[in-house]
Amino acid sequence: MNHTRHELVEVHERILPYIHKTPVFSSGLINNLAGCEIYFKCENFQRMGAFKMRGATNAILQLTEEQLAKGVVTHSSGNFAQAVALASKTLGVKAYIVMPSNSPKVKIDAVRDYGGEIILCEPTLAAREATAKEVINKTGATFLHPYNQEEVYLGQGTACIELIQEVPELEIVIAPVGGGGLLAGTAIACRHFAPTALVYGAEPSNVDDAKRSFDSGKIETNSSTNTIADGLRTNLGTLTFPIIQELVKDILVVSEEEIMYALRLVMERMKIVIEPSSAVALAAILRYPELFKEKIVGLIVSGGNVELDKLTF
Amino acid sequence: MNHTRHELVEVHERILPYIHKTPVFSSGLINNLAGCEIYFKCENFQRMGAFKMRGATNAILQLTEEQLAKGVVTHSSGNFAQAVALASKTLGVKAYIVMPSNSPKVKIDAVRDYGGEIILCEPTLAAREATAKEVINKTGATFLHPYNQEEVYLGQGTACIELIQEVPELEIVIAPVGGGGLLAGTAIACRHFAPTALVYGAEPSNVDDAKRSFDSGKIETNSSTNTIADGLRTNLGTLTFPIIQELVKDILVVSEEEIMYALRLVMERMKIVIEPSSAVALAAILRYPELFKEKIVGLIVSGGNVELDKLTF
Repeated sequence: MNHTRHELVEVHERILPYIHKTPVFSSGLINNLAGCEIYFKCENFQRMGAFKMRGATNAILQLTEEQLAKGVVTHSSGNFAQAVALASKTLGVKAYIVMPSNSPKVKIDAVRDYGGEIILCEPTLAAREATAKEVINKTGATFLHPYNQEEVYLGQGTACIELIQEVPELEIVIAPVGGGGLLAGTAIACRHFAPTALVYGAEPSNVDDAKRSFDSGKIETNSSTNTIADGLRTNLGTLTFPIIQELVKDILVVSEEEIMYALRLVMERMKIVIEPSSAVALAAILRYPELFKEKIVGLIVSGGNVELDKLTF
Repeated sequence: MNHTRHELVEVHERILPYIHKTPVFSSGLINNLAGCEIYFKCENFQRMGAFKMRGATNAILQLTEEQLAKGVVTHSSGNFAQAVALASKTLGVKAYIVMPSNSPKVKIDAVRDYGGEIILCEPTLAAREATAKEVINKTGATFLHPYNQEEVYLGQGTACIELIQEVPELEIVIAPVGGGGLLAGTAIACRHFAPTALVYGAEPSNVDDAKRSFDSGKIETNSSTNTIADGLRTNLGTLTFPIIQELVKDILVVSEEEIMYALRLVMERMKIVIEPSSAVALAAILRYPELFKEKIVGLIVSGGNVELDKLTF
C-alpha cells in the first residue's frame, strides 16, 4: 500500500465537481440497539445511488485525450455499469456496457437512460470478458474494472474521506466486501485520515470468500452465490486483496436473516432505502457487539442495487 | 382563517428546540417525469417519522402547569399516538394513549417505547372516544385531537414554513388530506409566507370525502376506507374544513395504482422511505400534469406509518 495522502486528496479534488457530497445520518434507536454510535455515510444519495460513481468518475478523468475520444467499456450487471454510463455521459465520453442477457430489465433501462451503449452477452464471466475484448478490438475503448483498478478503488475511498471530515473521532470503520474496491479504498483513506481507526470488512456467510482469503492468505472463491446481497458475490481482486491483508483488521460474516433484519431496521427506523449489500455492514455490528461496544463507528451505505419486488419482509 | 403571521412565527419558535429541521430533497429524474420542479420536505426524517410531532409538541407546550401535571390523552392508531407519546416524554409529561385493540403490534410497541401508557379498547370510534373520556374523568388529563385542534394544525403548518424558507420561489404546494390538519396548516403557512402560491390537497379516490366535501360545501363521509394510504381514511374536521374551503384551490384524487407507482418511484429513485399517504401527493402531480407544468412545487412527505410487509411491489 504505497498510496500517499496527497494522492488521495488529489483524487477527491478531481471528482468533487462531478459527485454529490452525501450526508451522514445516525439513529438514536439503532445506536441503542447496537450499543455504539454509528454514523451512516449515505452514498445511497450519491448520483445513480452508489459510491461506484466516485471510482468510475476518477478513472475516466485520468484518461488521455486520445483515450477519451475512443470511449470506455466495462462489463457489469450492477452499480458499476450505471456508474460508468452516467460518469461518461457527464464527461461527454462514449460508454460501452457489456451486460449479461439475463440482467433485470430495470438495470438495462437505467444504463440506457444514462446514455450507455448496451451490448448483451451470455450470462457467464467468460462471455462477458470475451465480449468486452471484442468491443475493445473494434473501438479502441479503454477497459474500466469495477474494483481491481487503482483509479477505481482510490475513487471509492473518497466516501470515507468525507465521512472522516464530518466525524473525525471515528474509532472503527466498516464496509461491505465483494471485489474489495470499497474496502481497499476505505482502508487507505483511514490509514491517512484516521490512522488510529480500525477497519473491518463485512460479508454474507453464504459467500464468505473474503473471510477465507483473509485467513488463508490467498484469493478464495465461492462454490455458490446464493445471497440477497447481490453486490457481494464477486471474489477479491489481485490488487485489492493485498491492501485488505495489510490494512484491514478482520472480515466479519453474517447470515441472510441478519442481513434482512438490518435492512428492515434501516428502512423502518431511518426511513432510507439501502441495498442489501450495505445492510451487511450493520448486520455485522449487531452480530459482534463486543467488537463495537461504545465505539464511534462509521459505515458506508449505498442504494443502487435495490429491487423492491425481491424484498419480502 | 384569522391566524396571523406573527402567531405562526411564535408556534415555530416554540417547537423548534424539540423538533428536527428536516432536509428538502429533489430528484432530477422525477422532475423530468413530472415536467415540473418538485421539492420534497422530508418529514419522514422528523422525530418519530412524521410532521405530527410538530402539532403534538405545540399543543403540549401551550398547556398550563396544572394541565401538564395531569398529563395528556389522545386516541389514535397511527402517527399521532407516537407523536403525543414522544413529545410527552421529551417534555416530561404523562401520556395516555387509547389504541384500538387490533392496532398492529409494531405501532403499540412504538408508543410503549416512547413511554406512553397504552389503554386498549374495542376498534370502533365510539369505543375510542368513550375510553378517552374515561381516562379524562379518572386522571384529569387534557385531550389532544389529531387534527381538529388549532394548536395541532398550526404546528403541522410549520413544516411548510421551513420549506418556504428553503425554496421561497414555490408556486404550488400540495399536501395529502385526511382529517385536514396538515393541509389546513400548510394553507395558512402559504397564505402568510408564500401568498402567491396555490395550495392543493390530494387524496385517494377510494376515500374521496375531502373532494366531495370541498365540492358540496359540507363535511362528507366515506362508505368504505379501503386504501393503502391508511393515514387518509379520516374525515375532515369542523375546524380544518372551513380553512381548506377558504385557502385551498382544489382537492385532487388518485387511484391506488397511482399511489403505489409514486411510492415505488420515490423509494427506488430517491432512496427514501415514505408512507403511502405521502405518495398520494406525488401521484396527484403525475396524474394532473397540466396543473403543474413547469411550476416550482413543494410537497410535504412523512414516513411514520410504514409497514414494510404490507408493501408488495
